[in-house]
Amino acid sequence: MVAGSGAVRVAVLGCGVVGTEVVRLLTQQGADLAARAGAPLELVGIAVRDVAAPRDQVVDRALLTSDAESLVDGADVVVEVMGGIEPARGLILRALRGGASVVTANKELLGKDGPTLYAAADEAGVDLYFEAAVAGAIPIVRPVRESLAGDRVTRVLGIVNGTTNYVLDQMTSGGLELGEALAQAQELGFAEADPTADVEGHDAAAKAAILASLAFHTRVSVAQVHREGIMAVTADDIARATATGHVVKLLALAERSGDGVVVRVHPALVPQEHPLASVRGSFNAVFVQAEAAGELMFYGRGAGGVPTASAVLGDVVTVARHKVNGGKGPIESRYAQLPARPVSDAVTRYQVVLRVEDRPGVLAQVWQAVAERGVSIETISQSRAEDDGEYADLQMVTHAATDAALSSTVSDMSELSVVVDVLSVLRVEGV
Amino acid sequence: MVAGSGAVRVAVLGCGVVGTEVVRLLTQQGADLAARAGAPLELVGIAVRDVAAPRDQVVDRALLTSDAESLVDGADVVVEVMGGIEPARGLILRALRGGASVVTANKELLGKDGPTLYAAADEAGVDLYFEAAVAGAIPIVRPVRESLAGDRVTRVLGIVNGTTNYVLDQMTSGGLELGEALAQAQELGFAEADPTADVEGHDAAAKAAILASLAFHTRVSVAQVHREGIMAVTADDIARATATGHVVKLLALAERSGDGVVVRVHPALVPQEHPLASVRGSFNAVFVQAEAAGELMFYGRGAGGVPTASAVLGDVVTVARHKVNGGKGPIESRYAQLPARPVSDAVTRYQVVLRVEDRPGVLAQVWQAVAERGVSIETISQSRAEDDGEYADLQMVTHAATDAALSSTVSDMSELSVVVDVLSVLRVEGV
Repeated sequence: MVAGSGAVRVAVLGCGVVGTEVVRLLTQQGADLAARAGAPLELVGIAVRDVAAPRDQVVDRALLTSDAESLVDGADVVVEVMGGIEPARGLILRALRGGASVVTANKELLGKDGPTLYAAADEAGVDLYFEAAVAGAIPIVRPVRESLAGDRVTRVLGIVNGTTNYVLDQMTSGGLELGEALAQAQELGFAEADPTADVEGHDAAAKAAILASLAFHTRVSVAQVHREGIMAVTADDIARATATGHVVKLLALAERSGDGVVVRVHPALVPQEHPLASVRGSFNAVFVQAEAAGELMFYGRGAGGVPTASAVLGDVVTVARHKVNGGKGPIESRYAQLPARPVSDAVTRYQVVLRVEDRPGVLAQVWQAVAERGVSIETISQSRAEDDGEYADLQMVTHAATDAALSSTVSDMSELSVVVDVLSVLRVEGV
Repeated sequence: MVAGSGAVRVAVLGCGVVGTEVVRLLTQQGADLAARAGAPLELVGIAVRDVAAPRDQVVDRALLTSDAESLVDGADVVVEVMGGIEPARGLILRALRGGASVVTANKELLGKDGPTLYAAADEAGVDLYFEAAVAGAIPIVRPVRESLAGDRVTRVLGIVNGTTNYVLDQMTSGGLELGEALAQAQELGFAEADPTADVEGHDAAAKAAILASLAFHTRVSVAQVHREGIMAVTADDIARATATGHVVKLLALAERSGDGVVVRVHPALVPQEHPLASVRGSFNAVFVQAEAAGELMFYGRGAGGVPTASAVLGDVVTVARHKVNGGKGPIESRYAQLPARPVSDAVTRYQVVLRVEDRPGVLAQVWQAVAERGVSIETISQSRAEDDGEYADLQMVTHAATDAALSSTVSDMSELSVVVDVLSVLRVEGV
């Protein structure tokens, strides 16, 4: 339980790309976070190696300290976003043993030595959460360990490394050799200057170990993961895959095998109609097969400071809530009451098909009638109506506007003397 | 906290398709469930209207009762899978007020009167969980309300009704009119004899209300959802959508609008490259946009007794765990220790490309060499090697076998005198 003021004291270890975004969200969304956690989250300090180094202006320099140990000792919740094995490991163990809950995004550490950390959390009776360590912003830990707790997972297939997925994607769409695609990815910032951790599958193997541990409620370390990177994949491999209706993906697989589990990372051919095949560019996805639930897939941004910070903050709210009230009740029990607005307020786009008289100037007349109502048209095309030489069909898609404006525009168009019929009105979404 | 024996007493209300599967999982996976919940889950009774009606043999008839109220009064956890408004509503309120936690799959009730139930759970300090009520087996409640608790959801787009998705899919692939596709779906059991709740969008609207409540931490009832069904969608609409690179989907949308939210259900054009466009047949998916996390998608079986039961049981484990130890610590803290097996034990398929001498009988010789090692070939094709008239390339895909068997077969093939080179070896997954 949280003492004194009732605020939950949050310490952040590390202030790189992810740490800065965590600090930003803690600062800017304080009211929402407090409502969801059940108490204010007070940022008590940020441990960094060099307090004098330049920082984003969102970081209050007065909170910077190089004394990570003292910071940990005074916190209720410790957020570890420094990465690497040490000093992260020692600080996390110190926090757990001191009774603080820990949120970490450190896949390398969890892949290598997760079991020690899980055991320490268990022993101390505190939380260790690590949503951001598996697939960035994609919520996968709660679904697998809680939502599927009444089911039996049989297999997990994941695309968990955005760099290699981007490189393989470029090879596929551009017919490039691996070296060329990798160089391009490095230029665009999608691959590191030293891409070894990605292209040799080390990053994916660490995540595979964590995923396997979650899915099978067992302990797998990265040393037990069979690992092959993408360096041997050729443009010919890709071309043959395309020719036979497949795509090449670097997969992380964990599956039951007899009384044990096999965990492996390697390039594989995936049929084009499989949901994983359409996971493009730097996106990640995890495909889960369970006995009762069947096939599930979770898709989203697997990396990047801002998406990763979202996953970290979700964990911070959960563990803070446990500190505040022992975890009772669902997070959303503190409801806002936002007004429900009518559909007329929704901003959308319409595709409208009109049957019109087939004579010169009709298209211009319709266009002008629409423009007069403040609605603009993105595309319009005309085709001869099938049944009758007298008529033509106009198919148009509008730019975004309120449903009210679009709907009244359609109504007005239907009354134009040149408009014979409104054949179809459908909203366009997802653009 | 749970008294006496330490077992968590679970009552099931309703024994239809979902109820029967819940009983089956509770019975057959007792040991796993107990390990994850922290105490045995004891099925204390199943409330049904007619105790004499025929039942699946997994249902112990001695547990059947028509006295739902007494059953509820003696339970720690009540699982409501009867559906409909009453008596479900009264029994859930009775359970909550009596201190039991409730798990429900009742989207109709939650869509209509969720706020009353949430408030009752809050007041009693017990859990009300409803993962199965939103998108069947797809874990969406925990990800949205917990994983994204540190983020701001801006928009939710869902395909949450499998019947209408199947019908629209059939219209698209078969060029059918809606009436024909619907009749076909009814014949195949994908649509009810009375399909009103699906095709008029009532089912999707109830789920949209629950999704909006979760995503925006506010209270939305189905009466506030703008609803249009699919009955007006024509084969012409579908053909035009295809021609312009779109698919027609029945979408449930919830989004911020000024200081409020707009929630709507209607058919919409979705670009073919959008992740929702590839959600086929009776599958469901929910696409979430959040400020920090970016785009996320959750995909899986949205209906069916077995998948829905998986979601129900996940909730049962969570609420039982809260009863046992106040919810402290993650579910997976009780680890099994399954042995990690080597990749040689993995069952997979290989695609192998060999460069061979281009003369009669070579293909047969390779085929036989493979068969002798107990591996069978699914497809094999031969093409003239690009550079040289002397050689041909054999591309083959094996049937499933252990990685050890496949790997040694490749090694043996490489030593055949007719084999000049092994050009490529890739595993095939996801089939």
